Amino acid sequence: VPTHPEPIASLIAALSTLPGIGPRSAERLALHLVQAEAGTVRQLAATLLKAREEIRFCGICGGLTREVPCAICADPRREATLVCVVERPVDILSIEKAKTFRGRFHVLGGRLSPLDGVGPEDLRIAELERRVTAEHIAEVLLALSTDVEGDATSHFLAKRLAPLGVRVTRIAHGLPAGTALDYADELTLSQAIEGRREIHQP
Amino acid sequence: VPTHPEPIASLIAALSTLPGIGPRSAERLALHLVQAEAGTVRQLAATLLKAREEIRFCGICGGLTREVPCAICADPRREATLVCVVERPVDILSIEKAKTFRGRFHVLGGRLSPLDGVGPEDLRIAELERRVTAEHIAEVLLALSTDVEGDATSHFLAKRLAPLGVRVTRIAHGLPAGTALDYADELTLSQAIEGRREIHQP
Repeated sequence: VPTHPEPIASLIAALSTLPGIGPRSAERLALHLVQAEAGTVRQLAATLLKAREEIRFCGICGGLTREVPCAICADPRREATLVCVVERPVDILSIEKAKTFRGRFHVLGGRLSPLDGVGPEDLRIAELERRVTAEHIAEVLLALSTDVEGDATSHFLAKRLAPLGVRVTRIAHGLPAGTALDYADELTLSQAIEGRREIHQP
Repeated sequence: VPTHPEPIASLIAALSTLPGIGPRSAERLALHLVQAEAGTVRQLAATLLKAREEIRFCGICGGLTREVPCAICADPRREATLVCVVERPVDILSIEKAKTFRGRFHVLGGRLSPLDGVGPEDLRIAELERRVTAEHIAEVLLALSTDVEGDATSHFLAKRLAPLGVRVTRIAHGLPAGTALDYADELTLSQAIEGRREIHQP
C-alpha cells in the first residue's frame, strides 16, 4: 500500500494518538504542517514544549497552574470554607466562567467507574478529606457529571464525608438555560420537576 | 472573563490556527498535552520539527518528498510519457492507492479561482508546459476536483496544452460531484482512471 514519505507518516501516527484526532484529521494536519511556514511550525513546537514544561498541578486543589499554589488557592478573597469538587481541571474554568461561585476548588481526577477499574483510591478523595479537616471547610459543593457514574460518585462522596460533619451539597440538576421543554429528555425533566423551587411572590 | 493560565492559553491559540481545529478541539488538545507524559510531548514536538525540516517539494512533479527528485519521478519503471495533473501533493497518494495509474505526476498547486484571486500564473502551468515539451509527454491526464472550479481549470488546461500537440484526457466523472479527491474511495478512483475520456480541444 502506498504511504506518505517517512517523516510525514511518523507525524500522522503521532497526531493520531491525540484525543479527537482520527486518521483523516491527522493526515490533513500533518500535510498542512509540513507545508506551513518553517517559523510558524517552530513556534508551535516551542509553545507546546513551554506549556508542557511550565504547567503543573496545584498541590492544593489539583488544578492546572504555572505557580503553585494556583491563583485561586492563593487568593485571600475567595471563601476558604466553601470547596467545589469537580472531576477534571478544565471544569474549574467552566465554573469560573459562570461567575457565581466564590469558594475554592478540589479536582477529583475523574469519577468512580468500576467497569474501567477506577476505584476510590484512584481519585483525590483522601486529599479532600484531609482538606476538609485541615482547612475547616464548612461546605463541599459537588459539581460532577450528571450521569450514572457522576451520581454514584456524588453519593459515595456524601457518605465518605458524613463523619467529618461537613455540609455536602450538589449543583442543581434541571433544564439547561434557553432550551424549549420538548428538547429535554425525560430524565432531565423528571429531575427538574423533583428539584422544583418556590417562586417568591411579591 | 476567566481564562486558562498563560502557557495553556498560548497553546490553545496556536492550535486554533490549524485546519479543522476549532476553539473547543484546541482547548481539549491543549489540556491533554499539558497533562501528557513529558517524553511523549517532547517526541511529538521533535517529530513535527523533523517532518517540517526534512520534507520538501519535488523539483519535477511538485509533490512532497524527502529526496529530490521524489521516488515516483526517479522510478524508471513509471511511464515517462504519461503525466497525471493533480491539485495538491496529497492527491498523488490518493491516485497511488488506486493502483491503476503507472505514469508520473504534476502538482498544479490549486485550481483557477478568480474569486479567490487565483489565476493561471499562480499555478504550476508554465512548468507543466515545459515538462510536456522537454519530457516528450504523450498524454496529460487531468485529475482535478469535479466541481465548477476544477472543471473550469481542466478546460483551461486543455486549451493551453492544445498547441503542444499532447493528448489531454481527464478522469471519468465516476466521482461524486463536489467532493475533493481525497474523499473518494479507491474503487471509485480506480474506475475513474480507467474510464478517462478525451477532452475535445477547440
